[in-house]
Amino acid sequence: MLRLPVLLLLAVLMPTASQPNTIPADGPAYTSDGQLRYPEHYREWVYLTSGVNMSYNPKAQADGHTMFDNVFVNPSAWRAFQQVGTWPDGTVMVLENRGGESGKSINKHGQTQSVEVMGMEIHVKDARLKGGWGFFEFDNQVSARLTPRPASCYTCHEEHAAVDTTFVQFYPTLVGLAQKKGTLSPAYLKEIATPAAK
Amino acid sequence: MLRLPVLLLLAVLMPTASQPNTIPADGPAYTSDGQLRYPEHYREWVYLTSGVNMSYNPKAQADGHTMFDNVFVNPSAWRAFQQVGTWPDGTVMVLENRGGESGKSINKHGQTQSVEVMGMEIHVKDARLKGGWGFFEFDNQVSARLTPRPASCYTCHEEHAAVDTTFVQFYPTLVGLAQKKGTLSPAYLKEIATPAAK
Repeated sequence: MLRLPVLLLLAVLMPTASQPNTIPADGPAYTSDGQLRYPEHYREWVYLTSGVNMSYNPKAQADGHTMFDNVFVNPSAWRAFQQVGTWPDGTVMVLENRGGESGKSINKHGQTQSVEVMGMEIHVKDARLKGGWGFFEFDNQVSARLTPRPASCYTCHEEHAAVDTTFVQFYPTLVGLAQKKGTLSPAYLKEIATPAAK
Repeated sequence: MLRLPVLLLLAVLMPTASQPNTIPADGPAYTSDGQLRYPEHYREWVYLTSGVNMSYNPKAQADGHTMFDNVFVNPSAWRAFQQVGTWPDGTVMVLENRGGESGKSINKHGQTQSVEVMGMEIHVKDARLKGGWGFFEFDNQVSARLTPRPASCYTCHEEHAAVDTTFVQFYPTLVGLAQKKGTLSPAYLKEIATPAAK
């Protein structure tokens, strides 16, 4: 049961060039060439939400397949958000896609999630990254390069996200907290004040 | 950071009649009249999966509403499952229902999850309960009475669940592990051997 405190102690005592002691033990870790390492234990992190078949493009066409997106955040960032309503340096948010499956076992309606992971994108808050946040798209379970700016993920999150470039408006346990803490972004406050403009 | 070990220590040092020291600190807790206490921190537990619009009844009619069901398990039970492929005494599984919402913020397709929780059912493994497992349906955030046997939740789980009366066949990160550990139930092994019988 002492695993977490021991890891934290190690992180404090043994800072390295790529992991200064301001980054928590469950924060982002990088390879020597700057790729983000796959966060092996993200399924034990804190779950934020799942959406189904989401798209931010009004012209997107349904292709007949169902896709779930599950979002997880590292526990140290979750705890900080509970205190202050926004994300600390070292936040790691994992978006995991799984296919929707119909008629599995005794399920007769709706969809359940596939064993196979169909995609993974990670959003990291790290002051050493340009703009303070970076996206990394994983196609393996080892590491991924930073998605370079400019890219639509950065501009869309910066223009529409409810808290600090993250889509807290879709996280049911956090949006009320952000409102209470006064951390909702000016863009999101404008959006909810003028619902007709949606 | 010492919260968890301190709680564990307290659980070991101060067993009570309703919580003997074989039950982990994140295990089931009861009121003096035997109701299960609402597990306040379940959203920080380990996420197992979400389904959408699931029903085990082939005659169920879609009512035009979307419903998500999110499943969480207490971390000590998760860790035990990783080791042995089945659940220890003191397992607490939370099924949380949230409504599906269309067109929220910049989302143009599919559904996101409602802030409001629409329902909650908890499945507890506790040797002191008849049959070793009990269901508790919550309509508040305080406590809930045991659903008495016989009830369809018990018979359906006992007849169809992949591992120890739980629907591990729907938990993408656990079903392969159960197969490897040899803990799949005879009923489920029969079901997957004869897919036409589904």
